[in-house]
Amino acid sequence: MKAEIIAVGSEMLTPFRVDTNSLFLTDELNKLGIEVTRKVIIGDDRAGLREAFSQAMERAELVIAIGGLGPTEDDVTREAVAELLGRKLILDEEIVRNLQERFRRFGRQMAESNKRQAMAPEGATILENQRGTAPGLWVEERGRIVILLPGPPHELKAMVEAQVRPRLEKVSGGLRLYERELRVTGLPESDVDQRIAPIYTGYADAQTTILAGPGEIQIHLRAWSRDAAAAARMLDEMAERIRFALGEAVFSTTGEEMEAVVANALNQNHATIAVAESCTGGLVAQRLTSIPGSSSYFLGGVVCYSNELKSAWVDVPAELVAAKGAVSAEVAIALAEGIRRRAGAALGLAITGIAGPSGGSPEKPVGTVHMALANGAATKERSFHFPGDRERIRQYASQTALDLVRRYFLAKQREGAQGKG
Amino acid sequence: MKAEIIAVGSEMLTPFRVDTNSLFLTDELNKLGIEVTRKVIIGDDRAGLREAFSQAMERAELVIAIGGLGPTEDDVTREAVAELLGRKLILDEEIVRNLQERFRRFGRQMAESNKRQAMAPEGATILENQRGTAPGLWVEERGRIVILLPGPPHELKAMVEAQVRPRLEKVSGGLRLYERELRVTGLPESDVDQRIAPIYTGYADAQTTILAGPGEIQIHLRAWSRDAAAAARMLDEMAERIRFALGEAVFSTTGEEMEAVVANALNQNHATIAVAESCTGGLVAQRLTSIPGSSSYFLGGVVCYSNELKSAWVDVPAELVAAKGAVSAEVAIALAEGIRRRAGAALGLAITGIAGPSGGSPEKPVGTVHMALANGAATKERSFHFPGDRERIRQYASQTALDLVRRYFLAKQREGAQGKG
Repeated sequence: MKAEIIAVGSEMLTPFRVDTNSLFLTDELNKLGIEVTRKVIIGDDRAGLREAFSQAMERAELVIAIGGLGPTEDDVTREAVAELLGRKLILDEEIVRNLQERFRRFGRQMAESNKRQAMAPEGATILENQRGTAPGLWVEERGRIVILLPGPPHELKAMVEAQVRPRLEKVSGGLRLYERELRVTGLPESDVDQRIAPIYTGYADAQTTILAGPGEIQIHLRAWSRDAAAAARMLDEMAERIRFALGEAVFSTTGEEMEAVVANALNQNHATIAVAESCTGGLVAQRLTSIPGSSSYFLGGVVCYSNELKSAWVDVPAELVAAKGAVSAEVAIALAEGIRRRAGAALGLAITGIAGPSGGSPEKPVGTVHMALANGAATKERSFHFPGDRERIRQYASQTALDLVRRYFLAKQREGAQGKG
Repeated sequence: MKAEIIAVGSEMLTPFRVDTNSLFLTDELNKLGIEVTRKVIIGDDRAGLREAFSQAMERAELVIAIGGLGPTEDDVTREAVAELLGRKLILDEEIVRNLQERFRRFGRQMAESNKRQAMAPEGATILENQRGTAPGLWVEERGRIVILLPGPPHELKAMVEAQVRPRLEKVSGGLRLYERELRVTGLPESDVDQRIAPIYTGYADAQTTILAGPGEIQIHLRAWSRDAAAAARMLDEMAERIRFALGEAVFSTTGEEMEAVVANALNQNHATIAVAESCTGGLVAQRLTSIPGSSSYFLGGVVCYSNELKSAWVDVPAELVAAKGAVSAEVAIALAEGIRRRAGAALGLAITGIAGPSGGSPEKPVGTVHMALANGAATKERSFHFPGDRERIRQYASQTALDLVRRYFLAKQREGAQGKG
């Protein structure tokens, strides 16, 4: 089954806002084996909408529009569809009652203009809106299904889950989507593709999508099948071969973020961590604490921008800063060991670097970053030169620092296994 | 002049990636008085592309496609346009030479497949690509202009600036876009709209767009005119009336981010700041240090998650935490005063709260946040209950804490002015 999405709203034709509703909707449709073959973004324009619906219905069995169902005269999606299908718009008394009830609950009087939201094309099925005033509509015409959904994301999501998904399950056939997501760090995109292309090109029934960001590459594997067990077997085999080809660069085979993987490793090892940051300015602490329950492993962090505070807060010897510079492997090591001691944590993680745009020199150009991880017995240090602007350098640095923690636990696990062997 | 944008690429029909290139392009077009009336997102499908170009050319004078110009057989945008216009694709020897030269510079041999990128429809103007291998194309046909641009954002941007903008300036007529952007915090969107609707509805020649996020509302004012001075006068008047209607809730009239406004205030007052954070986990420090040159005002920050570290690092009395709880106005005040003293900063800013999802109680539900700002002479404290999930609560809290600093300097300025008066 093929679907087209029509996103309605003049604000999405400005430079300020992009249509993201369609990502959620595409995911929902894909899960039911429905392919999205086109998206059209159009303003609240009656003639334009009529034409867009007409053309979409020629190409696809399913046409879903998002937005343009509000109570004002700008909102003309309902009218455009009714005109196109040659159906009258009729006041639906049940919608009126629901709307009045809703307004009463909030202690307000319903405006006369809200009655526009109770108009439905003849023969349409009403999709109740539990989060807002605009009901959705489901209209069938000559083997085509047209669905109109409200634009506010929380209204859209609730309506799709409660009203649209169960109805589409009945008409979409037995194909279902099965997915795996691997995440990779520490390798450039071209290397990743070179290593895994020989694998994924061998699976004609699976779709592979590779997306790259600073310090992270996502590999999405997707297959549609009527046979859940066979699809799972194929995807597991693919994922395992890719994991083997990329080795420890794969930090997740279930689509988790790096901070969640690190949180997991810390929890499983009953380990605590403290962080001393310079150029990342709190980004590592912020990522580690973005995970619910982070207080079980994260004790605290220090952003020591000035040299004085590196000494006063984390015991970095002032002579060391003077001799080696604040951005140096030696200071990174002293920061990691100092923050570990000061916080009483199992691990101390530290980053110092030059995020730019100024502050670079021929010896230490913008993008130079040193990081270290101390566990009390030993301190591991690594140095990098990251590309890009201030934001990208900070993103790369935080990702790589978190990865240092992940690899520390991997090495520990390996040693433990060898010790037992 | 009206334009339609066709974004080409199967990955934008998955749930993983949205077309953001068109935002940049829309901005460029709008600046030249060109309105974007529709966007179509379509896969690398020859027949579908032909149809999309054909329909777009019926509606708009300018059709710009992004993507599908790569060297592989999947990339068929060139072919689709040539077929639609009934023009032959001809190997352009100059493009071939440029490509060979480019590969030589990088010390690589050009693959035979790259020659596909040197094919251009008869009569097309070649748009040089200084950042990649795919040249752009500019084709005119019966009063319509069709422009094909590469998909990688840095290639697209460079080509638009160097090749497309100057050419469009000549054909787009004299209309130019004039803009103002106000940013507001501390008021709900409905209040903002209620207060300013009587103003902006009085300016028929200006377009007003209101966008709301956690702790921030953006008001975009836009007008197209041939008379720069008249447009500037009108927008300045609108902006000033809106600023007056919203008062100190307006934190920028030039579209700056809150962290930039606060950085500016700190710099202008030659003041330094240090931050103690609990529930925001480093987000405030990270935002304050995201501004280039932040070391001139930001001394350092502490993320003290555990109660022990609140005492050890920021001198919060353990008895105070025991009596009032870590999330309390009293602890926020102690944190602000402690971090100020410990860092030797002019200002100490502190946040403690419950970001959730767990940790709430009937007395202190999830979303409870206390913050304080100390300057050595006095400490200002404020308490909030923010809505939403962990991420939104952290976003709200960091925005409101930064706003506390902004309002502190506003009040200081007012007192200074009164003192002089």
